[in-house]
Amino acid sequence: MQNSNHRYLLKARPDGIAGPEHFMADTQPIRQPGPGELLLESVYISIDPAMRVWVSENPGYVPPVPIGGVMRAGGVGRVLASADPAFRPGDYVNARLGWQTHPTVKAAECQKLDLRVGSPKDWIGPLGTTALTAYFGLFDVGAAKPGETVLVSAAAGGVGQMAAQMAKIEGCRVVGIAGGPEKCAYLRDELGLDAVIDYKAGNLAAAYKAAMPDGCDVFFDNVGGEQLDLALASLRERGRVAICGRISQTATSALYGVRNLGLLIGKRARIEGFIVFDFNARYPEARAWIGQQLKAGRIHQRLHVLDGLDRAPTALGMLFRGENTGKLLVQVAAE
Amino acid sequence: MQNSNHRYLLKARPDGIAGPEHFMADTQPIRQPGPGELLLESVYISIDPAMRVWVSENPGYVPPVPIGGVMRAGGVGRVLASADPAFRPGDYVNARLGWQTHPTVKAAECQKLDLRVGSPKDWIGPLGTTALTAYFGLFDVGAAKPGETVLVSAAAGGVGQMAAQMAKIEGCRVVGIAGGPEKCAYLRDELGLDAVIDYKAGNLAAAYKAAMPDGCDVFFDNVGGEQLDLALASLRERGRVAICGRISQTATSALYGVRNLGLLIGKRARIEGFIVFDFNARYPEARAWIGQQLKAGRIHQRLHVLDGLDRAPTALGMLFRGENTGKLLVQVAAE
Repeated sequence: MQNSNHRYLLKARPDGIAGPEHFMADTQPIRQPGPGELLLESVYISIDPAMRVWVSENPGYVPPVPIGGVMRAGGVGRVLASADPAFRPGDYVNARLGWQTHPTVKAAECQKLDLRVGSPKDWIGPLGTTALTAYFGLFDVGAAKPGETVLVSAAAGGVGQMAAQMAKIEGCRVVGIAGGPEKCAYLRDELGLDAVIDYKAGNLAAAYKAAMPDGCDVFFDNVGGEQLDLALASLRERGRVAICGRISQTATSALYGVRNLGLLIGKRARIEGFIVFDFNARYPEARAWIGQQLKAGRIHQRLHVLDGLDRAPTALGMLFRGENTGKLLVQVAAE
Repeated sequence: MQNSNHRYLLKARPDGIAGPEHFMADTQPIRQPGPGELLLESVYISIDPAMRVWVSENPGYVPPVPIGGVMRAGGVGRVLASADPAFRPGDYVNARLGWQTHPTVKAAECQKLDLRVGSPKDWIGPLGTTALTAYFGLFDVGAAKPGETVLVSAAAGGVGQMAAQMAKIEGCRVVGIAGGPEKCAYLRDELGLDAVIDYKAGNLAAAYKAAMPDGCDVFFDNVGGEQLDLALASLRERGRVAICGRISQTATSALYGVRNLGLLIGKRARIEGFIVFDFNARYPEARAWIGQQLKAGRIHQRLHVLDGLDRAPTALGMLFRGENTGKLLVQVAAE
């Protein structure tokens, strides 16, 4: 067992894409758990687009990560020492690990993983927050119904690939947007999507028309900007846009201006933002549904795993440059 | 009784604000009603922002007015001759009159006015489509609740002044946006709004902050553009935007780009467009509520009445230049 907790602290708030220059490494002695606490070993740390919001001045729905504070992150950890009777060394937990190898956390804020339902990797993957985000965004906010056309942006990303597969399972016609032939082939050939739009191939408006000659009923949006603007034009009557992310809008100083909002009137269409944590009480329902799909082999989550905590500061930028295929995470220790 | 039907036909589709150059006058002999038809005398013709959409190439929810066709318009007419047993000469009706003095229309598409409930002027005013638009936009789409802060744009306009008064009646804190000191005084002193924003006074962002230090829960939007963008920034958690119109966006070739859509995520906020005709089945409910308020003296609709059909082609542009206070209409004949 190590004696040191390696961490990354927020050094400066990025305006554009976050990179290693915005974080600094730090080493502290491990802190043994006090009453009601757990000492964890981080195993998987999830790298999420929401982190860009967390490091901004005014994230809104959570306090900003303070300058000099440990970078906030969720993930799967293993209990090394427990001062709470409900947890034992060796247990796996979902926890707010932060970017650190050996966090000491409140037991009440950890969720013990049921390894009969899935492996620790499943729990960060198809049973994790990313998949839950897809589930509630698609079925609750987007209200996708069988037979409808569902458009998903960043469809090869962590949330996108789950939303796309869930929509297929539900009986929707699913169109995915991704960047480059490799990701598009993955969507078409491995996920079996009905049509694919390569946003890097140029003439996006024509590509939307070709992929969705009759428009779309639901747009699950992880990207924002031009892809959202064109989706508003493509939206059918009573269409719904679930805004999950805006990964294209990396600089708050240079936001894309969406011109097609007026079309919502004649279309009686809706745009709605959401945060997965609000659906907390219904996670069991979602996990039960996803668990069934996993067992039946109808859903899988492609993971993009980077090795070691030291990859975290560069990993975040990969999301915004579209360099990941599948859910991005850092493996800090072996399972 | 006249022998001629004076009309205005659509001559060309405007890109910017519609003016007399887009219409042409025309005179036809009056056509006597065939079976199931009525010959009407137009009394009041409503001039509505939606007309800008109707003369465009792709209005979406209704067919475009064809070039050379009579300009579409709703209003109140008096029956001159009836070939339908349900109507008699002298009856007043709500009808799609068009810009013409003596339309011959299908009786099935007319609604006989109950003059015990209100005068013909009331029926084009507080009992008319404009008021119904405010009712359903505010209470259904916007879901305004007592104690909430409601922001209304074009608050001195036909729909806006009704929405603002309805929100006051419901127990909301109401903030109105209008252009110039005269309209703002009307909102503050005559309608009793809680705060007023003069969009012509400059520094709109600061004016929003001053009028709504804690933000707004509902934005009833008749304007679009910058006023909408700033409202998104001002929106509170779970805020709702009911998009009713976009009167600021007169040229489809130069639409304002809305930059704050990403804020919907953290705010879990919603934007929704609507068309009053979809609520057709519930008009009686709305009129019953409005009728009560009228009787109690709690609501009134200021009308901006222009004299004579020949004013119609210039009237439309007045809406988009903000030259009207209250609902704009053309009086074609005496009651």
